[in-house]
Amino acid sequence: MSVSFRTARREDVPAILAMLDDDPVAAARESVEGTDVMAAFEAIDADPRNELIVAEEDGQVVGTFQLTFIPGLSRRGAERAQIEAVRVATPHRNRGVGRRMMEWAVERARERGCRLVQLTTDKVRHDAHRFYASLGFTATHEGFKLRL
Amino acid sequence: MSVSFRTARREDVPAILAMLDDDPVAAARESVEGTDVMAAFEAIDADPRNELIVAEEDGQVVGTFQLTFIPGLSRRGAERAQIEAVRVATPHRNRGVGRRMMEWAVERARERGCRLVQLTTDKVRHDAHRFYASLGFTATHEGFKLRL
Repeated sequence: MSVSFRTARREDVPAILAMLDDDPVAAARESVEGTDVMAAFEAIDADPRNELIVAEEDGQVVGTFQLTFIPGLSRRGAERAQIEAVRVATPHRNRGVGRRMMEWAVERARERGCRLVQLTTDKVRHDAHRFYASLGFTATHEGFKLRL
Repeated sequence: MSVSFRTARREDVPAILAMLDDDPVAAARESVEGTDVMAAFEAIDADPRNELIVAEEDGQVVGTFQLTFIPGLSRRGAERAQIEAVRVATPHRNRGVGRRMMEWAVERARERGCRLVQLTTDKVRHDAHRFYASLGFTATHEGFKLRL
């Protein structure tokens, strides 16, 4: 398996949206209409602290995730890297693509000088919990959400 | 109690650092030296998606938190607001300052058009869990961290 990574382009948005939607946990909550997806893409693309990444295999987009680099005074001024919206396309699951993605994300954070990588995952995603634990993450925190 | 809120200024940094340090859970992990706290302050201050806020009472800084507005393609392009580094100065705890702070933070997120407010809190902070639940947050997610 040869997976490569790059920043998402405008034309990747439909493939990314298809992956975001193809998920039973997310589908249960993705009912609210927001402003505009392409405007959101442009906002991410223009923001030096946000990176929307796609994983490619044989020229095809097989996965996606977003990195946000959050500056802060804690931890003596080091940025933390946050990972959101992790998805692997259904036909490509359980082949190690997700592992390659998260290893790449951690390496990207390290290379940027982040001292911490963080993410939250729904409590019902038991497979994901084992997956992140196997990558060295520890579930030290409760993830609280409030929908507006 | 009359608490007011404003964006932190450079001269607030020592007071904010004192509050960040005056916490047994954080103290246990805050051993790593990062780049530079004032550089981090300038980075936050210059970033339109990060807001470092202080709560004031009688002209004195009594609390702090940071808001990060994260753009994303999920939830139909709506931003999510993330709250980090929430602290109330020790002499001012258990008087409702934290509640006012989080109510203000949620209102700020709402006014900006965010569809979701999120935060993580250490699993050992049981009082904090009750506090956030009382504000309408639900602990639907596991918060995974990886220190680099």
